[in-house]
Amino acid sequence: MIRVGIVGGTGYTGVELLRLLCSHPDVRLQVVTSRQEVGTPVADLFPGLRGYTDLRYVPPEQADLRGCDLVFFATPNGTAMTQVPALLAAGIRVIDLAADFRLQDKTMWQRWYGQPHACPELLAEAVYGLPEMNRERIKQARLIANPGCYVTAVTLGLLPLIEAGIVDLKRLIADAKSGVSGAGRDAEIYKLYTEAGDNFHAYGVPGHRHQPEIIQNLAILAGQPVDLIFVPHLVPMLRGIHATLYAELNKTGTDLQFLYARRYSDEPFVDVMPAGSHPETRSVRGVNVCRIAVHRPHDGQKVVILSVIDNLVKGAAGQAVQNMNLMFGLPEIRGLAVPALVP
Amino acid sequence: MIRVGIVGGTGYTGVELLRLLCSHPDVRLQVVTSRQEVGTPVADLFPGLRGYTDLRYVPPEQADLRGCDLVFFATPNGTAMTQVPALLAAGIRVIDLAADFRLQDKTMWQRWYGQPHACPELLAEAVYGLPEMNRERIKQARLIANPGCYVTAVTLGLLPLIEAGIVDLKRLIADAKSGVSGAGRDAEIYKLYTEAGDNFHAYGVPGHRHQPEIIQNLAILAGQPVDLIFVPHLVPMLRGIHATLYAELNKTGTDLQFLYARRYSDEPFVDVMPAGSHPETRSVRGVNVCRIAVHRPHDGQKVVILSVIDNLVKGAAGQAVQNMNLMFGLPEIRGLAVPALVP
Amino acid sequence: MIRVGIVGGTGYTGVELLRLLCSHPDVRLQVVTSRQEVGTPVADLFPGLRGYTDLRYVPPEQADLRGCDLVFFATPNGTAMTQVPALLAAGIRVIDLAADFRLQDKTMWQRWYGQPHACPELLAEAVYGLPEMNRERIKQARLIANPGCYVTAVTLGLLPLIEAGIVDLKRLIADAKSGVSGAGRDAEIYKLYTEAGDNFHAYGVPGHRHQPEIIQNLAILAGQPVDLIFVPHLVPMLRGIHATLYAELNKTGTDLQFLYARRYSDEPFVDVMPAGSHPETRSVRGVNVCRIAVHRPHDGQKVVILSVIDNLVKGAAGQAVQNMNLMFGLPEIRGLAVPALVP
Amino acid sequence: MIRVGIVGGTGYTGVELLRLLCSHPDVRLQVVTSRQEVGTPVADLFPGLRGYTDLRYVPPEQADLRGCDLVFFATPNGTAMTQVPALLAAGIRVIDLAADFRLQDKTMWQRWYGQPHACPELLAEAVYGLPEMNRERIKQARLIANPGCYVTAVTLGLLPLIEAGIVDLKRLIADAKSGVSGAGRDAEIYKLYTEAGDNFHAYGVPGHRHQPEIIQNLAILAGQPVDLIFVPHLVPMLRGIHATLYAELNKTGTDLQFLYARRYSDEPFVDVMPAGSHPETRSVRGVNVCRIAVHRPHDGQKVVILSVIDNLVKGAAGQAVQNMNLMFGLPEIRGLAVPALVP
Repeated sequence: MIRVGIVGGTGYTGVELLRLLCSHPDVRLQVVTSRQEVGTPVADLFPGLRGYTDLRYVPPEQADLRGCDLVFFATPNGTAMTQVPALLAAGIRVIDLAADFRLQDKTMWQRWYGQPHACPELLAEAVYGLPEMNRERIKQARLIANPGCYVTAVTLGLLPLIEAGIVDLKRLIADAKSGVSGAGRDAEIYKLYTEAGDNFHAYGVPGHRHQPEIIQNLAILAGQPVDLIFVPHLVPMLRGIHATLYAELNKTGTDLQFLYARRYSDEPFVDVMPAGSHPETRSVRGVNVCRIAVHRPHDGQKVVILSVIDNLVKGAAGQAVQNMNLMFGLPEIRGLAVPALVP
Repeated sequence: MIRVGIVGGTGYTGVELLRLLCSHPDVRLQVVTSRQEVGTPVADLFPGLRGYTDLRYVPPEQADLRGCDLVFFATPNGTAMTQVPALLAAGIRVIDLAADFRLQDKTMWQRWYGQPHACPELLAEAVYGLPEMNRERIKQARLIANPGCYVTAVTLGLLPLIEAGIVDLKRLIADAKSGVSGAGRDAEIYKLYTEAGDNFHAYGVPGHRHQPEIIQNLAILAGQPVDLIFVPHLVPMLRGIHATLYAELNKTGTDLQFLYARRYSDEPFVDVMPAGSHPETRSVRGVNVCRIAVHRPHDGQKVVILSVIDNLVKGAAGQAVQNMNLMFGLPEIRGLAVPALVP
Repeated sequence: MIRVGIVGGTGYTGVELLRLLCSHPDVRLQVVTSRQEVGTPVADLFPGLRGYTDLRYVPPEQADLRGCDLVFFATPNGTAMTQVPALLAAGIRVIDLAADFRLQDKTMWQRWYGQPHACPELLAEAVYGLPEMNRERIKQARLIANPGCYVTAVTLGLLPLIEAGIVDLKRLIADAKSGVSGAGRDAEIYKLYTEAGDNFHAYGVPGHRHQPEIIQNLAILAGQPVDLIFVPHLVPMLRGIHATLYAELNKTGTDLQFLYARRYSDEPFVDVMPAGSHPETRSVRGVNVCRIAVHRPHDGQKVVILSVIDNLVKGAAGQAVQNMNLMFGLPEIRGLAVPALVP
Repeated sequence: MIRVGIVGGTGYTGVELLRLLCSHPDVRLQVVTSRQEVGTPVADLFPGLRGYTDLRYVPPEQADLRGCDLVFFATPNGTAMTQVPALLAAGIRVIDLAADFRLQDKTMWQRWYGQPHACPELLAEAVYGLPEMNRERIKQARLIANPGCYVTAVTLGLLPLIEAGIVDLKRLIADAKSGVSGAGRDAEIYKLYTEAGDNFHAYGVPGHRHQPEIIQNLAILAGQPVDLIFVPHLVPMLRGIHATLYAELNKTGTDLQFLYARRYSDEPFVDVMPAGSHPETRSVRGVNVCRIAVHRPHDGQKVVILSVIDNLVKGAAGQAVQNMNLMFGLPEIRGLAVPALVP
C-alpha cells in the first residue's frame, strides 16, 4: 500500500484526488490538509464521499507528511515550492498539481507567476508529468510537475503533428474551452452560477499562464522554437475541456488519421476517434482519457484537431494518479479504468 | 460469471446498465438489443463506453437471449410483458426496469398504462425489487419488477414513518423534482435543451403513474389504505431526484432522527444524514445511494423528509444491479461501491 | 419626469431596477450608489446597459439623494432603515427592496433579522407593496416595503383561497423553488456554477425569513392566525420562482378556477392560467407577471396551486416599478408591458 | 401601421419575431401560419405571449397573406422560394429568415442545400439583409435575404479588417460557438437537455452551410476571393453566438481599435468594446446588438477578434425587424432599443 498525503484537500483537484484515491486498491490515504476547514470531516464538506473516508482536515503545520510515501499538492501556485525540498530530503516523493515546477526556466516562471521561485534548483530535476511524453522519466522521478489542464489537451492534440515535423511552427492556434471547475472553488463573482450560467466568453486573450507551458512542450517536441496563439473560453458546464487546434501543413502526403492512430496506439489514455468524429466533452466525464479527432477540411492545407479531456481527471487528478502508478511500479491504469458518466 | 442480456440498450436506463455492468467483475455482457440501431457498435452511439465493450446492437428477434442467465428489460412500458413468459419458461431470470410488473392489481395496471396486460398471471409472482422492503424475496425471485425512480425516493423517505405508524395516512404529500434524464431519450420537444433549460415547472398534477405505485408500497407497509398527493416537477439538470415529503404526526414522543438511523443502519445504500442536513442531488450523482434528512420544523406536528437519489442509478439501473447481486448470491454492493462524481 | 435615485446598484435587484428604469418613459435616473465600485461607470460593470446609461457609481455619502423624488433601496437588510427617516423628512419617497420594513412587529423583525431596528416607529406607516392586496394605500404611501420574492409568489397563490375562507388555515404548505439569482450577487461558494449547477437541494427547512412575512400576509387576509410550512429549494437556473402550494378544503362546492379568475380579473400582472395548466418559470422570464394554475387532484379535498414569477421582476424590481407607477399616478403598467423572453 | 404576416410561427425565429413585433408600435400582426398547430392560439403554445396576441395559427394555404404589406418567412430552408414569386407579384414585400436567397450563385446554393432552386431568377434581386453592408439597398428592396446567425457575427467581426485590406485573405479562421436555440425547435435527440447539457463539442468541421455565405460576404468586401476555415461548436446555453476570429496582418501600423471604432461609429447596433475587453454572450441576450472586441496578442502579427450576438435577435428576428424598419422608412432602432436581460 502506498501511504499518501494530500496537501490542500478542499479545492476541486483535491476532492477529485480524494474521489479517485478512495477507491484505488493500492493506496492508503493517511492525511489531508486544509487551513480553512481544520477539524472538519472530509465527508462533511463533500457528502459524496460519505462512507469512503473518515479523514478530517488537519492544518498543514500539524500534518504528519513524514509518514507518507507520496504527497500530492493540490494547493494554489506558490505553496508547494516552499515545502517540497524538505519532503524530498526526507525521502518522500511529490506530485505537484499546481504550477510550481512546470516551467523549466526560472525567469519565465517568475514573470508569469509574479513571485520569486523558492527552490529554482529543483526545476531541472522536476519531471513534467505527461506520460505520453515522459513515461520513462516519470518512473524514476522524485518530483513530478503535473501538467496544466489546457496544456494537456493542447499538447496531446498537437504532439503527432509536431513530432512528424509537417506543420508550420509559426502558425499554431489553440482555441480552448473549459468548464467552470477549471477556475477552482474560491468564491469569486465571475464564477457564480448567475454569472457563468447561460453565458459564454473568452478570457485572458492578452496572455494566459498556460501558453508558455504549451510552448515549452511543443518546443521540446519540435527541437526548435514554436509560436502559438492561445485563447481560452469559459463554458457553462461543470467539467471538460475542448481544444480546437489549427495548424497549417508544410508538407503533403501524410495520412493524418494513420499518423495519430499509430502514435497513440499503445497509449492507454489517448483515444484517437474514427475519421470524421466530433468528440464531446461528456464522453470523458469523470475519466482519465483524452479523445482526439483529426480533420482536414476540404482536403486543404489547414488541419483542425479536436481534443477533449475532463479538466479534473486527465487534466489534473487522474493524470496525477497515472503518474503515481508509474512512479510506484503499478499498472498504469490501476484505479482509473471506468467508463464515462453519460448523461 | 453471470451471462447477461439487455433488451433495449439505447435509452438512458439501458446505457446506464451498460456502464455499470461493463465494470462489474462477475458479469459477462452477451447481447444488447435495439430496433433502431441494428448493427451499430454500442460504443459508437455512446463513445463514453469506447474500450469497454465491443458489442453491437442486434434486433430483438435475432438476439440469443436463451444463452443468458439473466435478461434486463430497459424497454418502453408494455414490451417486457410480451417476452417474459417465454424467457422464464426457458429458465432465464428477468429484471424489468419498465413498469410492466410493478402494480399487483391488473385492473389498476390497465387503467394507468392504457392497454391490456399480456401476462397478468405473472403479476403475483413478480417481486417488487426494492431491497429495503423485499430483500429476502428478491433473492429467490425469477422475475423482478424494478421500482420507478420517483417511487424509490418517496418510498424510502416515508418508510420508517409508515412502519412506525406515527403519521396521518390521509395527509401525505410528495413534492418531487427530477432531472431531465428521467423523461427518457426519445426526441420530444419539451425535453429539448431550449425548452427544459433555465426553466422549471410541475407536470402531471392531475395524475402520474408513479402515484399508484407509491400508494401500493405504502399501503403494504401500513397494512391499510393510504392517501398521498404526488406532484412531480422537471428540473434543469441531467440526473437526480429530490423528494420533499410532508407528513403529519399523530403520535408524539418519537425521536425521528433515531428512528431513521436505526431503520436503515444495516442498509448499504440508504444514508441517513446528520440532523439538520439538506442533501444535494449531486451527492448521489452516478451512485446507488439514497440520502435522507429528517426535519421537524419548529418542533411542530409536521415532518419534512428530504430524500435524494440518482434517478438512473438507485432509481433504475443501479437498483437493478443491486437486485441482480441479491438474486445471484453476490455481495449486495458488488460493482456499486464508488463515490459520487462531484462537481 | 420622476427623478430617481438607487442606493445599492451593484446587486441583481439593483441592476434589474436599472434595466427597467432605463427604458421607463417617465423616469430620469439621477444617481446610483455603491461602496465597492465608486467611480466605475455602471455600463462597465454591466455591459448589457451600454448605451442606456452614462451614470457612474457614487459613494452613498456623496450621493445627492435630496435632488430625487423617489429613492429605491436595493441594499442588504439593515441599510435602508438607517437612511430612510432623513429622506422622508426631506420630502422624498422611498421604496425599500430589502426587508427592513416588511414585518410590522418590531420584536419579530429583530428576531428574524438579528439586529435592533433603527426606526421601528416607521413600521406602522410603511405600506407593504403588494398591489394586489394594498393598491389604494400604495398610492398614498411615502414609504413602501417591497415584498420578498418567495412571499409574492406564495401570497398571490393562496390569496383567493384565504379570502374565500374555504381552506384549513393550519394545514398550508408552500414548497418553493428559486433560481440562483434569488441568493444575490455576493461571492459565496454555494452559489458557484460548480456548486449550484446540475444540482438541486432544499435549504432553510428549520426556518427562513420569508416564512413570517408570508404568515403575516395570510393572517391579514384571513383575519386570524394561520400556520404554514415553508420549504425553499435552489434550482439550477438564473431566474424564476415556482411555488407549489398545498391546502386542504374545509368547505365544498366552490368552483376554484372561477374563484381565481374572478379575483384576479382586473389585475394587470396576475394571470390565471386555463384549468389543467402547469405554468413554466420561463413564461415570466424578465416580466412583471405572476402566472397561477389551480388543481384539485382526483376532485378530492386537497388543492394544489402552482404559482410562478420572475424573482427579480414581480419578485423585486418590477414590483417596485409597479409601486412607483401607483405612487406617482402613472398607469400601473407603464414601462412593464413586454412579453417574456423565451427561450 | 405595417400589416405583417409570418409564415412559420412555431420555431424559435418565428416566436422571436412574434415577441419583437407584438411590442413594435408600427406593426399590426395580421396572420401567423403553421401546419402542425392549426387552430391553436399562439399564446397557448408560447404562454410568454399571453396578453400580447390573440392570433391563432392558420394553415399556410388559408392564410390571407395578400392583405399584408410585408411577409416574414421563418420556415425551413426551401419553403420561402416556392411562395415568394407570387407574393412579390402581388406587391407584397418579403423578408426570408431562412437561407433561400442568401447565396447569389445558383449552383453553389444547390450544392449546399441539396435541392434545385425554385426561383433562381430572384437571387440577383434579393438584397442580403446585413444593414452594415447594404443599408441603402435594403431601403429599396422588395425581397430581403436575412443573414445567417453565424454569418452575421463573423462578417461584422472581420469586416473592418477586410475593408482595410490589411490581413492575409488566405489565412482566416472563424472558431464559432452557438447556444442550442440556433439548432431550431424540431425534436431531435442531439438537442435534448440530456444530450446538449453539461457538454461541449464541435460539429460540421468537414463543411457547414454558413461557410460559403461568410466567404461570399468577405469576397464582396475584399473585391477578391478569400479563404476561411469555419468551425462551429454547440454550447450548453439557450441563446448567443461567440465568434473567435483569427487573422494575420500583412501590413503594419494600423491602430486596430481606432479602425473598428471609426468603422462602426454610426452603427446603432454594433458596439465596439474598449480595448482589452472580452464580450459575454449574455451582454446581448434578447437584444439586437453585436459587440466586438479587438485583440493583438503580444503586439504580434496575429489579430484575435471576439464578436458576440444573440443568434435569435441580431442573428435572426431582430435583424429582420431592423431590415423592416429600413424598408418602411422607420427609424432603424424602432422597437429594438432595450437593454439586455442580465442575469
